[in-house]
Amino acid sequence: MVKKVLKFGGTSVGTIERIQHVANIIKKEHQSGNKLIVVVSAMAGKTNELIKLANDISEEFDSRELDVLLTSGEQVTCALLSGALIKLNVKAKSWLNWQIPILTDGDHTNSRIINMHVETINKYLDEKGIAIIPGFQGISKNGDVTSIGRGGSDATAVATAKLFSADFCEIYTDVDGVFSTDPNKIPVAKKIEKISYDEMLELSSLGAKVMQPSAVQTAMMYDIPLEVRSTFTDRKGTKIFSQENIDYSKSVTGVAYSRDDSKITIIGVADKPGIAANIFEPLSKAQINVDMVIQNISSDHKTTDITFTVKRDDVSKTKQILKTNSKINYKQIVQNEKVAKVSIVGAGMVSTPGVTYKMFRALSDELINILAISTSEIKLSVLIDEENTLKAVKKLHTIFDLD
Amino acid sequence: MVKKVLKFGGTSVGTIERIQHVANIIKKEHQSGNKLIVVVSAMAGKTNELIKLANDISEEFDSRELDVLLTSGEQVTCALLSGALIKLNVKAKSWLNWQIPILTDGDHTNSRIINMHVETINKYLDEKGIAIIPGFQGISKNGDVTSIGRGGSDATAVATAKLFSADFCEIYTDVDGVFSTDPNKIPVAKKIEKISYDEMLELSSLGAKVMQPSAVQTAMMYDIPLEVRSTFTDRKGTKIFSQENIDYSKSVTGVAYSRDDSKITIIGVADKPGIAANIFEPLSKAQINVDMVIQNISSDHKTTDITFTVKRDDVSKTKQILKTNSKINYKQIVQNEKVAKVSIVGAGMVSTPGVTYKMFRALSDELINILAISTSEIKLSVLIDEENTLKAVKKLHTIFDLD
Repeated sequence: MVKKVLKFGGTSVGTIERIQHVANIIKKEHQSGNKLIVVVSAMAGKTNELIKLANDISEEFDSRELDVLLTSGEQVTCALLSGALIKLNVKAKSWLNWQIPILTDGDHTNSRIINMHVETINKYLDEKGIAIIPGFQGISKNGDVTSIGRGGSDATAVATAKLFSADFCEIYTDVDGVFSTDPNKIPVAKKIEKISYDEMLELSSLGAKVMQPSAVQTAMMYDIPLEVRSTFTDRKGTKIFSQENIDYSKSVTGVAYSRDDSKITIIGVADKPGIAANIFEPLSKAQINVDMVIQNISSDHKTTDITFTVKRDDVSKTKQILKTNSKINYKQIVQNEKVAKVSIVGAGMVSTPGVTYKMFRALSDELINILAISTSEIKLSVLIDEENTLKAVKKLHTIFDLD
Repeated sequence: MVKKVLKFGGTSVGTIERIQHVANIIKKEHQSGNKLIVVVSAMAGKTNELIKLANDISEEFDSRELDVLLTSGEQVTCALLSGALIKLNVKAKSWLNWQIPILTDGDHTNSRIINMHVETINKYLDEKGIAIIPGFQGISKNGDVTSIGRGGSDATAVATAKLFSADFCEIYTDVDGVFSTDPNKIPVAKKIEKISYDEMLELSSLGAKVMQPSAVQTAMMYDIPLEVRSTFTDRKGTKIFSQENIDYSKSVTGVAYSRDDSKITIIGVADKPGIAANIFEPLSKAQINVDMVIQNISSDHKTTDITFTVKRDDVSKTKQILKTNSKINYKQIVQNEKVAKVSIVGAGMVSTPGVTYKMFRALSDELINILAISTSEIKLSVLIDEENTLKAVKKLHTIFDLD
């Protein structure tokens, strides 16, 4: 007998018909003899609807009350799905955040799960019942309702799998799994059968928005095998586990891209020790994540240009901080938003020589100019002109044998 | 300093603008130095929306899960109203059913409140905070979510007033108060300033749907002064308290009518002792409420006709029970739904001779035939043809000086 956590996202439970479909999936899993804890999101659109109500009252709606408001969404799904299962003659029951309870730590709207009481639900699973629990939420030590941030149902699923010592955690969503690149834009993209946590993290943070990165991180930390699969097809999904379980035949697993970045160049800063620290320390303190950095070779040994990328959302804040920074002098700040970051990701890269060279050569063949580069153990990213994005992704997808 | 429970119904909190308006009413009450506990309903339409979702899954949706589903509605209002008050710089906080907790007894979807923990909220009131709590719900002894039936927010308000020893309980709704008859149909209807619990009960159960009868009953039992008033005007409402506080200048307080009844006649039943018991006992056991009963004078001393009224919803069940009742013989069952019950209500009636005669004479003057009669201490009801309803109500309203 296997214990599983199944998580169904907002689109999977977006209508009554879909909830009934999900109930049938769960019934089938149950009939296979599995012990099941099901984590659900709010019905698609509901959370945004509630946020709109709050914003109509105040743009700075009280965060404690916002948590009370938003967590009602998953409560509704819990009740409807439990009712749908009972209608199918399956033993099922909803548990709310305070009934389990799901204990959290941290601020309102941004808590994290630290514990759950498992005995009662484990007993119910032993009696062949299915427990339906709400994602995205918990209660604090002093008994307030808390939420763990948007998309937090993935985090709830992984924490549940960990705390209940589940054998598997399956994330049901509206895509078939993780793809070698964006299947909507690059038709030759292929579903990846197996992928490591690290690769998944690089792919998801780069735009393959299949699962919340923090949930993948938690799964990696506790070595919980994940599977991402579609609610709407019977096809196998993508299995995510630790690298040692994967036999790498290819150096590159996927090609990701994002258009969230902006390039900022500070022209004519004094070329002296400590200048980079003076520039980047205030940005870091303001929670602005600087990704790629290039310091140009100084021609006169007096001034230089420093180029870096930040998220587009952070551009105006970044410029504000640079302008009020008394520790730096510069001639001009230039900004370019028409850039894209293209990355090849693969745990096999580290053992395959020449991947870097192969990537640069391929882009050069396509006459695509590289504006900046960043690397990690399993990832190689380049910044290019936005207009070349798809051309670059297609080319890389082909030359690394992913088509 | 006065402690008040304020209750706002679904239409009073039906939109964000209305919730903001309600927040302003509460702020004003708070600035007058009152301690306030506010009970809220779900936003108008929300409960029906949730019921529709449940019915789309199953007409017999699991009652435990139905309670989990429906109680989310008041949770949303609690959060929004608390947020709206905080936005107005008023100290306020929502408490959910399990946070207070509100303890209930009885079946799912039909529980009743047996206790609330008062210390924490009382402390908060002492610190000049306003407690916002959900109507219509509670938790059972074993920690399940329960609801106390539709319209149960009135019952929550009265139970809260009782358990917190509040001085007043104010029911804010979408009408100005209790009227001497239906103001939508009879324009000369007047708002009643003061009314006794008993009169209110007779009026509300007869169709003046201003407040839930069971909530009025509870208020009567514990002598909690009520006021029904409009959320949308500044006008005074109707005060409801015990009879001894009211100085009756008029014999009749109001004229009510309802079209919920159906007349059933059993023709040709054996005229012998015990026959009425044989007819009505099985109906009573099936929870069917028989209101007016007439046994005709038997012409042959062998058979007679028995006429009675039941709620229209109960007609088919009633006929089913009569047909399968082996203890009675009869020729025929005749049914008439085109009837209305018109009642005059007034605690002053008992001390005013001739009220009965005056009513019958007035109806006779209008050529309205009386099909059946029932009386109580403070009420006199007649059954008439439905088409004469408004004519009868108008006439009675005039002759008892209510215009």
